[in-house]
Amino acid sequence: MNQSFKYCMPTQICFHAGAAKEVASFIKGNNVLIVSDPFLYKNGLAEQIGAAMEGKKVAYFSEVEPNPSCESVDKAAAQAREINADCVIGLGGGSAMDVSKIVSCLVENEGSIYDYYSGGTRVLKERNTSLICIPTTAGTGSEVTNVGVFTNRKAGIKMPMVNDLFWADVAVIDPELTYTLPPAITASTGMDAFCHAIEAYWNKDSQPICDMLGMGAMKLILENIKTAYDEPDNKEARGAMVMASLIAGIAFSQTRTTGIHAISFPLTTEYGASHGIACSITLPAFIKISVEQAREKMETLAAYLGCASVEELSVRVEELMKSMDMPVRLSQLGVKEDDLDHITEVGLGAAIIQLTPAVMNKDTVHELLQSIL
Amino acid sequence: MNQSFKYCMPTQICFHAGAAKEVASFIKGNNVLIVSDPFLYKNGLAEQIGAAMEGKKVAYFSEVEPNPSCESVDKAAAQAREINADCVIGLGGGSAMDVSKIVSCLVENEGSIYDYYSGGTRVLKERNTSLICIPTTAGTGSEVTNVGVFTNRKAGIKMPMVNDLFWADVAVIDPELTYTLPPAITASTGMDAFCHAIEAYWNKDSQPICDMLGMGAMKLILENIKTAYDEPDNKEARGAMVMASLIAGIAFSQTRTTGIHAISFPLTTEYGASHGIACSITLPAFIKISVEQAREKMETLAAYLGCASVEELSVRVEELMKSMDMPVRLSQLGVKEDDLDHITEVGLGAAIIQLTPAVMNKDTVHELLQSIL
Repeated sequence: MNQSFKYCMPTQICFHAGAAKEVASFIKGNNVLIVSDPFLYKNGLAEQIGAAMEGKKVAYFSEVEPNPSCESVDKAAAQAREINADCVIGLGGGSAMDVSKIVSCLVENEGSIYDYYSGGTRVLKERNTSLICIPTTAGTGSEVTNVGVFTNRKAGIKMPMVNDLFWADVAVIDPELTYTLPPAITASTGMDAFCHAIEAYWNKDSQPICDMLGMGAMKLILENIKTAYDEPDNKEARGAMVMASLIAGIAFSQTRTTGIHAISFPLTTEYGASHGIACSITLPAFIKISVEQAREKMETLAAYLGCASVEELSVRVEELMKSMDMPVRLSQLGVKEDDLDHITEVGLGAAIIQLTPAVMNKDTVHELLQSIL
Repeated sequence: MNQSFKYCMPTQICFHAGAAKEVASFIKGNNVLIVSDPFLYKNGLAEQIGAAMEGKKVAYFSEVEPNPSCESVDKAAAQAREINADCVIGLGGGSAMDVSKIVSCLVENEGSIYDYYSGGTRVLKERNTSLICIPTTAGTGSEVTNVGVFTNRKAGIKMPMVNDLFWADVAVIDPELTYTLPPAITASTGMDAFCHAIEAYWNKDSQPICDMLGMGAMKLILENIKTAYDEPDNKEARGAMVMASLIAGIAFSQTRTTGIHAISFPLTTEYGASHGIACSITLPAFIKISVEQAREKMETLAAYLGCASVEELSVRVEELMKSMDMPVRLSQLGVKEDDLDHITEVGLGAAIIQLTPAVMNKDTVHELLQSIL
C-alpha cells in the first residue's frame, strides 16, 4: 500500500433525492448562470431548477455540445460576464460541468480559454464567482474533480485542463435527475464510472483513500448497473449508480486515469464513440494486462468483487457490457486493422497512459488493441 | 445504503515519511506558533520541526495537557496574539491539535474560549491565521476533523466543540513521528482509531463514503496494530496505523461518534483512563449490541474482516486488546457496581449516544456496562 501520497478534495457534497430543487441555499449573490446542453434546456430541467431559485436572477447558456469546444466555452464566458455572474452552475453530464468550471473562472480572468490552455500563456488567478455542479448522468464524476476536458477544434484535439480553481464549491447530487436516462446512456456512463474507479485503483499513483473508495464504487456498479439498465425506474439502483459515479470521481480526482482514458481520446474524436463506450471498450483487455505490475492488488480486488481470478473479473465485465448491448470490439466502432498504429500513437501521446500498471509502448498497446479488434 | 447525505472534508493531506520536515512549504507568512505538549517539547521534536522552517519566526507553546483545559487554550491564544501568528501548528496527539484549532481562531476573534463555548454567547468569525495539524500518535484523527474537545475545569466537564473553522488547512502526516510511540500508547491510540472507524460505520447517520473508508481503516488496524505493538520499528506497520487513523478520522468527521465515545467521557474525567482505553473498553460490548439495528451491515463488516459472525468479531477484538495488555473490564479502571448508574447517566447526557444502532436508555446502557464490569 502506497505510504506516500497527497489528497485534497475540497468540494462540499450534498446528496439526496430532490437536492436539485434546493440548490439556492448554496448560492451567495444574485446573478446565476446555468450552463447546460440543448437537451436539458428543451426538456425543461434547466428552467425548473432555475425557477426553484426564488429571488435569484437566472440566465441560461444551453449550447454545450458533447466534447465541448473552446468556442462554446468563450461564448458561455461572454454571457457570464455580461450578467456579472455571482454563481455559475454546471448542469448536465461531464461536458456541461466541465464548461461551467472554466466559465466560472473566466468571469474575472480576462480573455479567451485559448489564452490559458492548449498553448496559451496566461495563468488563471483567483476565482470569486462560485461554482456549483449538478450531474444529470451517473458517470463522469466531474462534479468532484478539478479537471475539464475541452476540444480544440482548430487543432482537432481533445485535451484535459487541470486547475485547482476547478474544484466546485458544491456538488449537488440528485438521483431523481437520472431517473429518465435512457438505458444505453445508463450503460455507457455507468461503465465510464467503473473505469474511473478501476483506473484509480490500479494506478501507479494509487493511494489508500482512493483504493478504498474505488473498490466500494466498483462493487456498487457491479451490483446495480444492470438493474438500472433493465428497470429505469428503480430508485434504489439509480441512487446507487449516481453515488458510485460520485465516489469513483473522488477516487480518480486524486490519481488521474490511465491507459483506458488515453486510448479513449482518439476513439471519441476520430470514431465518434461516446466517452463511456470509448473507455469501456478496452476495459476487459486492460483488466487482463493489469496483473503485469499489480497482480496482488488486482487479485484482492477480484476476490472483493466475488470473482475467483482477475481473468474471471475481465470476462464478467465483458459479459456485463454485452448484456447491455455495448460494443466490445473495436471493429464495432468502425476501427480497421490499419488504424491501430495511429490509435496506438495518439494513445501513447497522453501522459496518463504511463500510469497503467503494465509496460505501455508501441508494441504492447498495439497488441492490446489487436486483441479486441 | 444511506442515499441522503452531506460530505465535506476540505483539509489538504500530505502523507509521507519525512513530511514533517517539509511543513514550511505549506506556510504563508512569517510568524509561526507550534502548539505541543511538554513531552514533545522536551524531547526536541517541536524544535526540530521548527528549525526545519528556514526563514520563519517560530515560537513554541508547550503546555498542552491531556484533556486540555480552557485555561491552556487561553494561554496559548495569548501567545499567538502576542507574536501575531500567521500560522498555528498543532503538533501532538488529539490534545495539541485540538488546542491549535481554537487558538488559530482566537488570534483574530477576541476574548476567551469561554466566550465561544460551554455557555459562551459569541460566535467565531473568519479565521485568517492558517492552521496545520501534525499528528504524533496514530489514533485521534483530529488532523482531519472540525472538532476540538476541551475540558471546562470549573464545571468539571469535557465537551466537544464543532466548528467549520476548525478544519486544518493542511494535515501533515509523517509516519516517522510515530516510530517511538511506546507499545501501550500504540495499542490505546490504535484502538481509538478502530472505534472511530466502527462508530462511523454503524452510525445512524452513516453514509457510503465513510462506510468505505471505515471498513478500509478497520482492516488496516486489525492487520497491523499487533505488529506495531510488538515491533515498534516496523515501518510498514507504523505507516499503516497512522494511515488508518487518518482515514478513520475522515470517516467519523462526517458522521460523529456514538455510544463508545459517549461512555468514554466519564471514564476519562472521573477514572483517569486514557481516551483510547476509555473508548475501547466498551468496544466489544457495543459490537455485540450493534446487531440490534444494524445486523445486515455488521454481518457484511464481519465477513469483510474475516470473521464468521459479528459475535466472532467482538471476541476477536477483545482477544486482540488482551494480547496488548489493555483492560477489558470496567473494574480494571476502578469502576464499582455502584458507579454504573452515574456512568450511565453521564453517558446518556451526550447526544451522540443516540447515534448508536441500538436502543440507548438507562436500562440498556446499564446492562451493557454491567456485562463488562
